Amino acid sequence: MSRLTRAHCAARDAADPLAAWRGEFALPEGIIYLDGNSLGALPKATPARIAELVEREWGQDLITSWNKHGWIELPRRLGDKLARLIGAGPGEVVAADSTSVNLFKTLAAALSLNPDRPIILSERDNFPTDLYIAEGLMALLGKGHRLRLVEGDAVEAAIDSDTAVVMLTHVHYRTGAMHDMAAVTAAAQRAGALMLWDLAHSAGAVPVDLTAAGADFAVGCGYKYLNGGPGAPAFLWVAPRHQERFVQPLSGWLGHAAPFAFEAAYRPAPGIGRYVAGTPPVLSMAALEAGVDLLLGVSPAALREKSLGLTETFIAAIDQEAQGLGLSLLTPRDRARRGGQVSLRHEAGYPVMQALIARGVIGDFRAPDILRFGFAPLYTRFVDAWDAAAALVEVLRQRGWDRPEFHRRAAVT
Amino acid sequence: MSRLTRAHCAARDAADPLAAWRGEFALPEGIIYLDGNSLGALPKATPARIAELVEREWGQDLITSWNKHGWIELPRRLGDKLARLIGAGPGEVVAADSTSVNLFKTLAAALSLNPDRPIILSERDNFPTDLYIAEGLMALLGKGHRLRLVEGDAVEAAIDSDTAVVMLTHVHYRTGAMHDMAAVTAAAQRAGALMLWDLAHSAGAVPVDLTAAGADFAVGCGYKYLNGGPGAPAFLWVAPRHQERFVQPLSGWLGHAAPFAFEAAYRPAPGIGRYVAGTPPVLSMAALEAGVDLLLGVSPAALREKSLGLTETFIAAIDQEAQGLGLSLLTPRDRARRGGQVSLRHEAGYPVMQALIARGVIGDFRAPDILRFGFAPLYTRFVDAWDAAAALVEVLRQRGWDRPEFHRRAAVT
Repeated sequence: MSRLTRAHCAARDAADPLAAWRGEFALPEGIIYLDGNSLGALPKATPARIAELVEREWGQDLITSWNKHGWIELPRRLGDKLARLIGAGPGEVVAADSTSVNLFKTLAAALSLNPDRPIILSERDNFPTDLYIAEGLMALLGKGHRLRLVEGDAVEAAIDSDTAVVMLTHVHYRTGAMHDMAAVTAAAQRAGALMLWDLAHSAGAVPVDLTAAGADFAVGCGYKYLNGGPGAPAFLWVAPRHQERFVQPLSGWLGHAAPFAFEAAYRPAPGIGRYVAGTPPVLSMAALEAGVDLLLGVSPAALREKSLGLTETFIAAIDQEAQGLGLSLLTPRDRARRGGQVSLRHEAGYPVMQALIARGVIGDFRAPDILRFGFAPLYTRFVDAWDAAAALVEVLRQRGWDRPEFHRRAAVT
Repeated sequence: MSRLTRAHCAARDAADPLAAWRGEFALPEGIIYLDGNSLGALPKATPARIAELVEREWGQDLITSWNKHGWIELPRRLGDKLARLIGAGPGEVVAADSTSVNLFKTLAAALSLNPDRPIILSERDNFPTDLYIAEGLMALLGKGHRLRLVEGDAVEAAIDSDTAVVMLTHVHYRTGAMHDMAAVTAAAQRAGALMLWDLAHSAGAVPVDLTAAGADFAVGCGYKYLNGGPGAPAFLWVAPRHQERFVQPLSGWLGHAAPFAFEAAYRPAPGIGRYVAGTPPVLSMAALEAGVDLLLGVSPAALREKSLGLTETFIAAIDQEAQGLGLSLLTPRDRARRGGQVSLRHEAGYPVMQALIARGVIGDFRAPDILRFGFAPLYTRFVDAWDAAAALVEVLRQRGWDRPEFHRRAAVT
């Protein structure tokens, strides 16, 4: 392979069919933002949409907006849009609550539908909230369920006749490694287990086809690659075959078959509607809808191609420029096993990332030694991948990260 | 008493020490808005705050805003502010999730702390989500808990040694009747039960002192009298003596003692922090904060005095002007037993309310025959109470509500 240069990257940007999408985002000047896997960037259309919602719909139309402006339909309308990003159909997804709360609903369903099996099987180092919610649910149930954690590549072999549900994050938050959704789902179901996918680092970044995989449940996050804004509501998918087999326990009034009849007894809404709990946070839902609307205009195949191009470019630049600087690649080189981020290890990971941020390259750090770089394909350029690698090399060469100010720890990095 | 006139009402407005607060709200022209008990009005300061949050904090400062702009502290910072409105201390309240979800957390805690008692005691016609969530939790636990419902004035007598928790809405959503918080709490605790208050129609409308009442748990709503915007996050209070006696089951990562340590096992945050579940919807939280900030500038005693003045004026106007028109008053005349709304019954309640709305007086309807009028004291005038009563009388006299267009039912009224 010929030597990679910044000019090659600029040429790829010039030929990039998705290049114009960057113009749809309000990005800060002089910053290379590689943390869209933690908080996605602001779509330019969002501020006007939110201002309209706040000033006209809330301020002027007030209570009538629940009907007049369709607020009441937001969980399902937005769910139907999200469905198109994850290989699901209309009436299969709702936008609601947080990922944590949606994990609780779907895990409760899974354990109820597989009542004679005690094990929730997951991956060691899965995103903590997934594990914490499993703990909380098991303790509440008090029925002897156990959470079994194995390495990512040992999951399939660990599924057995005790496994009630396999709960995995499709793309790992630390390593960026991606599970084979169809293969793991099939393995779980062959053993009589149900399959619950957390799509936090998938939706909007990598192709997802829950229907083709035949999965059972999924949850996902609105504020990463979906660009729904800080703390945007999460979403939840239940395979149609399971939707009416269980009444999820957070049976709030908006999951009732007739919320405005104010009946004394809970009657679950038909289908996916019963997975809504309380009143949705409309401002945050509207921002999520603006982010999702943007993504619906993009070809998923083109998005994936760009994403892989970006991560490959960054990996190639590090391979070429950063030899002997103490970095090792944690993310799989195999395209089929890589999500939308690149994770590198360095023994001084924390101060190195702080020094990089001080130079305007925003990635993040995950303990104990991981530098994460998210390449959101809609607004990241190939030259950004090159420039980020060059900045990292410079930081490591100059050892600027040795300076004490880069060793202070922040609460969020 | 002398005959009430519109001029008397105008004089009261002129003398009203809270009159200027109306100027802090963006209200539609030509509308009398009496539905602030369903969706509070828009504070004028909110659009600019939201625009700043979206465009500068999210758009420009991106991921760094979690620390730089204190997003990560929102559930507790806002909780501490809310605490001042409900007679609680710092570190006792979090803003999080929906009222439904917070009911689940606190009811789970109550049942766990009173494990040998099977009964959740509540009021017939309590707001449905309270009852539905109790149903959902009981079904999930599968331990033979039962929900017992009695009339509001029979609650105290119904508390017995089987009662684990008494769950009541302080101000009833349909009737506007207010329970004596201290008396009912004392009765519950004398019988060894725990007391859970739903403050949905109280916070921001009537004085609440959870500490003085010695209550155990409370939840409340952000989008009614707190003016936090549609679907604003809810809040939750746990008496300090109980906070660390239970690990609530929605044990998401932001309730962990060290969320950014990404530990494999859940370690609940000390104190109230463990009642946070997932990532908060920051846009909706910020709008709630703007609404709460406004209320913190108002004397609670003055607020209550104005509120009672408004409801009394409306009741007096109806008494005086609407004799023989088929209305009956559902809300208590006793000041001590009345919240911030007035509910009237009329056999044609639904079309009457639709006809009233068509004349620009926005109240709402609750089945089977209830006309609800909320008098949010910060932005409602005494002349509004008079004019609303006059409009209602006119609708009833002219029987305009007989016209077919007022009989169509909307999903939200």
